Amino acid sequence: MAEIQMALDSLDFDATMALAEQVAPYVDILEIGTPCIKYNGLKLVKALKAAHPDKKILVDLKTMDAGEYEATPFFEAGGDICTVLGASDEATMKGVIKAANANNSEAQIDLIGVEDKTAVAKQAAANGAHIIGVHTGLDAQAAGQTPFEDLTTITGLGLNVKVSVAGGINKDTIQSCVKAGAAIVVVGAAIYGAPSPAESAKELRALVDAA
Amino acid sequence: MAEIQMALDSLDFDATMALAEQVAPYVDILEIGTPCIKYNGLKLVKALKAAHPDKKILVDLKTMDAGEYEATPFFEAGGDICTVLGASDEATMKGVIKAANANNSEAQIDLIGVEDKTAVAKQAAANGAHIIGVHTGLDAQAAGQTPFEDLTTITGLGLNVKVSVAGGINKDTIQSCVKAGAAIVVVGAAIYGAPSPAESAKELRALVDAA
Repeated sequence: MAEIQMALDSLDFDATMALAEQVAPYVDILEIGTPCIKYNGLKLVKALKAAHPDKKILVDLKTMDAGEYEATPFFEAGGDICTVLGASDEATMKGVIKAANANNSEAQIDLIGVEDKTAVAKQAAANGAHIIGVHTGLDAQAAGQTPFEDLTTITGLGLNVKVSVAGGINKDTIQSCVKAGAAIVVVGAAIYGAPSPAESAKELRALVDAA
Repeated sequence: MAEIQMALDSLDFDATMALAEQVAPYVDILEIGTPCIKYNGLKLVKALKAAHPDKKILVDLKTMDAGEYEATPFFEAGGDICTVLGASDEATMKGVIKAANANNSEAQIDLIGVEDKTAVAKQAAANGAHIIGVHTGLDAQAAGQTPFEDLTTITGLGLNVKVSVAGGINKDTIQSCVKAGAAIVVVGAAIYGAPSPAESAKELRALVDAA
């Protein structure tokens, strides 16, 4: 059964908490987006975990350096998953994996911007990463790019890690992501941009469960 | 005259403010390190700018996506310089440059983890970046790497941008960085790890001014 991850991309603390409240019944993972964590800081992790102890909290740190140092407090504050860039030094990725294991949590290697995604995915799996994130960023989406071809490539490697996919996924594409082997599908604008985020999340939940 | 940038790498809000107070008389730029901004959020930018209106504040966002969206509030809050990763999409870098220009501030392209540093530096300069950051990260420093060869390569390009250098710089290497053409030298551990951060900053100031 694939998990749904809701990307909380607002900057505002209260708006983020309110959106999480609306969609929580239908999603498995609440993601604090990168701009949101930089804007609000650690206290948002604590608040979101306190409000939703039954959900996984992903902190999209996109760590580029000082892996263990940067990620440790976010795991300790209640983050179940922290992300680290596949574009970072291997030692940085290892640092976040180490911090995750020390806190009985998970490290996700984000392949955004990585040229040789297959090589980094294999390296990450060998180093014990828990999740590989196939990810077309917002700026690349604006230029028309999608994550679907990369998803097939990465799941096709048959690595012993979960694969997550993000990048403009909506009701027309979410089932094909699950069928392509994604263990986690990330949805953002398709939910928070909908007239009713809760209704949209409910619809996506049904689609994922039926895929 | 080269500028000195002090990297505030603590996570603690009060410790960061206290260290800035100690070293401010001897440095030009106060840098909120990446782990520090993620931990504390936007309010630290406002507090640091309010306490030091005569200093430039660099927010080391290391932005990887959603450039304009992520950087804009940090410029608006008083950040004079925000960083964006050279490993990011060109559109992301352009977004941070746009946000900088809209706020009469500066965008720094951080070359950490970039394979073809010359190509990215040239592209960044052509896109109107204000500063190119030559940067050996903490995890790479731990593996024995230094930024000095890259500094010579990048300043040797003769691009119309300021070049900043970071990566374990101390009293033994700071003058050679200035002589190699660095407009900004970043110091972290050599100051905050010293018995007296203020004395160390004062000593480094004298070395830079005499270079």
